[in-house]
Amino acid sequence: MPAYKAPLRDLDFVLNELIKVQDIIPTLPGYEDATQDIFASYLEAAAQFCENEIAPLNRSGDEEGCEFNAADHSVKTPAGFKQAYQQFCELGFTGLDCDPAYGGQGMPKTLAFPIMEMQCSANVAWSMYPGLSHGAYAAIHAHGTPEQKDTYLPHLVDGSWTGTMCLTEPHCGTDLGLLKTKAEPNGDGSYSITGTKIFISAGEHDMSDNIIHLVLARLPDAPKDVKGISLFIVPKFHADGSRNPVACGALEHKMGIKANATAVINLDNAKGYLIGEPNKGLSCMFTMMNAARLGCGMQGLGIGEASFQGALTYARERLQMRALAGAKFPEKAADPIIVHPDVRRMLLTQKAYTEAGRALTALLALQLDIEEKHPDADARQDAADLVALLTPVAKAFMTDNGFEAANMGVQVFGGHGFIREWGMEQLVRDCRISQLYEGTNGIQAIDLLGRKVLLDQGAKLRKFSKQIHKFCEANAGNAQLAEFVGPLSKLLKEIGETTMGIGMASMMDKDEAGAAATDFLRLIGHITYAWLWARMAEVAYSKLGGGDDAFYNAKITTARFYYAKLLPEVESLKAKIKTGAKPLMSLQDEHFAF
Amino acid sequence: MPAYKAPLRDLDFVLNELIKVQDIIPTLPGYEDATQDIFASYLEAAAQFCENEIAPLNRSGDEEGCEFNAADHSVKTPAGFKQAYQQFCELGFTGLDCDPAYGGQGMPKTLAFPIMEMQCSANVAWSMYPGLSHGAYAAIHAHGTPEQKDTYLPHLVDGSWTGTMCLTEPHCGTDLGLLKTKAEPNGDGSYSITGTKIFISAGEHDMSDNIIHLVLARLPDAPKDVKGISLFIVPKFHADGSRNPVACGALEHKMGIKANATAVINLDNAKGYLIGEPNKGLSCMFTMMNAARLGCGMQGLGIGEASFQGALTYARERLQMRALAGAKFPEKAADPIIVHPDVRRMLLTQKAYTEAGRALTALLALQLDIEEKHPDADARQDAADLVALLTPVAKAFMTDNGFEAANMGVQVFGGHGFIREWGMEQLVRDCRISQLYEGTNGIQAIDLLGRKVLLDQGAKLRKFSKQIHKFCEANAGNAQLAEFVGPLSKLLKEIGETTMGIGMASMMDKDEAGAAATDFLRLIGHITYAWLWARMAEVAYSKLGGGDDAFYNAKITTARFYYAKLLPEVESLKAKIKTGAKPLMSLQDEHFAF
Repeated sequence: MPAYKAPLRDLDFVLNELIKVQDIIPTLPGYEDATQDIFASYLEAAAQFCENEIAPLNRSGDEEGCEFNAADHSVKTPAGFKQAYQQFCELGFTGLDCDPAYGGQGMPKTLAFPIMEMQCSANVAWSMYPGLSHGAYAAIHAHGTPEQKDTYLPHLVDGSWTGTMCLTEPHCGTDLGLLKTKAEPNGDGSYSITGTKIFISAGEHDMSDNIIHLVLARLPDAPKDVKGISLFIVPKFHADGSRNPVACGALEHKMGIKANATAVINLDNAKGYLIGEPNKGLSCMFTMMNAARLGCGMQGLGIGEASFQGALTYARERLQMRALAGAKFPEKAADPIIVHPDVRRMLLTQKAYTEAGRALTALLALQLDIEEKHPDADARQDAADLVALLTPVAKAFMTDNGFEAANMGVQVFGGHGFIREWGMEQLVRDCRISQLYEGTNGIQAIDLLGRKVLLDQGAKLRKFSKQIHKFCEANAGNAQLAEFVGPLSKLLKEIGETTMGIGMASMMDKDEAGAAATDFLRLIGHITYAWLWARMAEVAYSKLGGGDDAFYNAKITTARFYYAKLLPEVESLKAKIKTGAKPLMSLQDEHFAF
Repeated sequence: MPAYKAPLRDLDFVLNELIKVQDIIPTLPGYEDATQDIFASYLEAAAQFCENEIAPLNRSGDEEGCEFNAADHSVKTPAGFKQAYQQFCELGFTGLDCDPAYGGQGMPKTLAFPIMEMQCSANVAWSMYPGLSHGAYAAIHAHGTPEQKDTYLPHLVDGSWTGTMCLTEPHCGTDLGLLKTKAEPNGDGSYSITGTKIFISAGEHDMSDNIIHLVLARLPDAPKDVKGISLFIVPKFHADGSRNPVACGALEHKMGIKANATAVINLDNAKGYLIGEPNKGLSCMFTMMNAARLGCGMQGLGIGEASFQGALTYARERLQMRALAGAKFPEKAADPIIVHPDVRRMLLTQKAYTEAGRALTALLALQLDIEEKHPDADARQDAADLVALLTPVAKAFMTDNGFEAANMGVQVFGGHGFIREWGMEQLVRDCRISQLYEGTNGIQAIDLLGRKVLLDQGAKLRKFSKQIHKFCEANAGNAQLAEFVGPLSKLLKEIGETTMGIGMASMMDKDEAGAAATDFLRLIGHITYAWLWARMAEVAYSKLGGGDDAFYNAKITTARFYYAKLLPEVESLKAKIKTGAKPLMSLQDEHFAF
């Protein structure tokens, strides 16, 4: 694999030409200083850090993994990880989009997300240490008392302490209602927490002075089910430096992200502090969870980009066979494999999914900033609705596409893709988890169709559709864009009908929604990307003749590829949805095998 | 993961009720004794061996891997591998479908293939040691001199020696024309061979007394390109026990099949013996290669079955959430996840692909037996044509589907699927290579569309289509089958038109065939499976009321699932093919990234 290069040109296109974040960001209270120049300098610094500091540790981190010491319950991260983290802290990146009241740099998510993408491309396992911390920061910032904020936030912001999310238990992943960890009041306002948590990313390590665990547990009198879950702050070390009995019991052996410590965390009367209201832990937890879901999407995006870069370099260098229509480089022993249509199909798939994913990420980041900072309540609500609708899409569609892209990268390499030294197969293994954690992609699909679409009778989806419809109307007379606008408005209409059909069917039988959900999510993903590709083509056309035609023509060509070779998946999605739940539900459970 | 259970009931269905191999096999000269009872006893013995001997070594083999000793160039296989291989030899399985003249049991491929499927389910890395040997046996049996046969075959048949295929070099995989390894005549009829081969599966190990390498190399006066490649037998040990300088230089570190030794083989004036004609090595090599491609298909099949078994058990046991329509098991803490439509979708996908793949395997094995043994030349030609047409389909479609099935198995497990101990992620890693080696799946697609379909103006495809057409005609009035026969004959017609369209377009521009190839292969795969599912439903209907209705109703239900939820992929394939090569070829090589 070639050295990772941050896609700064494409980020500039997406942020400044497509989403035009500068039209909005500096108008939001608190982001007045977040100018285009400031963005550029942060992006440049982050690119250098990712390219030079963490990308070189990606392969070695995978080979070394994390080391658990059962004697003192400590975990050693791979060589170089701690030093890179210290540098990241010194550069101020741990507090990039954090509250200046606690030492943060107060930058918008619109800047933070692209930087997260770069980290995911360069070293996704490493990126999860600051990533999880940021989730803990966000939960405490949103739900903590002033004292809790003063106690924890400055350290999480400067990176001297890190954080975790302790949700899962051996018998409960998706179904948090089954949670068993107990929290007994100590009488002094603190709680005594006992239980076992598993799959705790960055759960124990040697990179920070303290680890702040955010732990879901039940109070003694708590209602059963998810209505009886509370969230607690459980620090590894107390303020007086004494050790809290919250300790790593083991590390999991995993398919990928081996350099991230996935810990079993045992709590044995560990002292914890309630955060937020009793029994309202789930909603506090979703502060972290929604961000984590977008973070997963960026893992798919970043890994797709890394795999594209590797595959493209290889396809240009590897000489094998001649072009079907005759030698293109007769002076060489064979043609580079990029001449072959099927290799180009794979490269263009990686490229088209990645660039659309980058656009979606910027769009969502901007909505998050608007949701948080816009003075107008309607604008905030519109932004919040779009984020709610598209979060499960970003999580599942971007990780499924990222996994496909990573596998195509391996495929471009042929047998060499299977060899660890090349680094291509690691991307497949590292990406695989993103489809599983923070709610499997099947759960995302049900969240989208059930909670985000059917529960409000399609209100959020209609709002989103209106945006796409407006774009189509505005460009109805645009001959250049006709090849995109035509299929886009046709699909928009079909999705409306499909959604209506599912809604009707699921009123009679809820399994109809469950059966359609995964296909429906890809349908929404495709119309989102088709809309973004049409918009990218529109921008590209408007820039032609300005001195950078190669870049803009590539955008238009890639948009065409998307419409010709990826968007047609909707044909099978529509056909599958039409067949309903019966083909899934008729086989009796005991007759699946004989 | 649960212990592997060989799918004997389904094999009985496929062999004896669907493909009805007993109507033909015992009528073929040499296979008179291969009765249904004989089949059953071999299958039972193989099932026991796979379940009890090699399945238990699958996880440990992955963890241990193979160990290379640089001092003496030896390789140690994981614990238990050698003992299991000895038992396999003692049971006579190494010579199962080998010539009795050399100690083989003379059984048909129709029996050998299901046994290969079982090995692939139980332990694909282990299965490759005897698998590669069998390839060497077949090449020497087909192309060797009587002396060569007498020298090598008895040992390959009894398993005391094993074999390899030495094709790939660092700079040449697909493009064997670039091959550099040299063979200089020694003057005594032998040759002195020098070069480096990579990716040599089972290339060095401690399981047999000798290793017979079949090596592609160039004679001094050989024409350039693939027309100048010859095949040589290069034994590790000479008849006098002396060591030939053909040695393992290193083992590759791989994503999966870690228990199989993927060796770098250095030849340093190693003594070799020409097999077949000078410069005709490629056609000898294809004796091994075609079998190896079907072997890959069986890896996809076997791994899909193993993943299905794991996922099904987990889905029945794992309690998480309630069915959308209300609790199905209110007495339990939650419902088993098999109640959820999306989980059933994944299980049924695994099941439908696996069972159709098993049927295709039996069909192809029977054609191979007919091709080899049938007294009638036309019957042999028909069988050969079908095998030629469907070999790339079996290789690519079955491995792509196997990989999808393995990934769905992981997905059913949620986060636990990512943890090595469960064994589900290993299936993904082990399956990944099957899409890459023996010709990447992209190469299979070009082989199918270019060589097998367009080169003979569609003659082989028309012959195959006629079979499907006959089935549709014969069942035109069958109300029970109408739901299958209708879509099947519609698709058959569309594929005819699609093929014609590609043929016309590719006369103007050869890239049109290259651009359509991968989608076209999946189209042919789907019509093959759709035809087989319709035939399975036909058989199942005819057996209803005979005491095993649960089994046959499951077949009918799975056929419906296939038509409702998997076959619709053809809608997007047709749409993508229609858009032609331009969306792939227009972007200039240097404009893929900026």
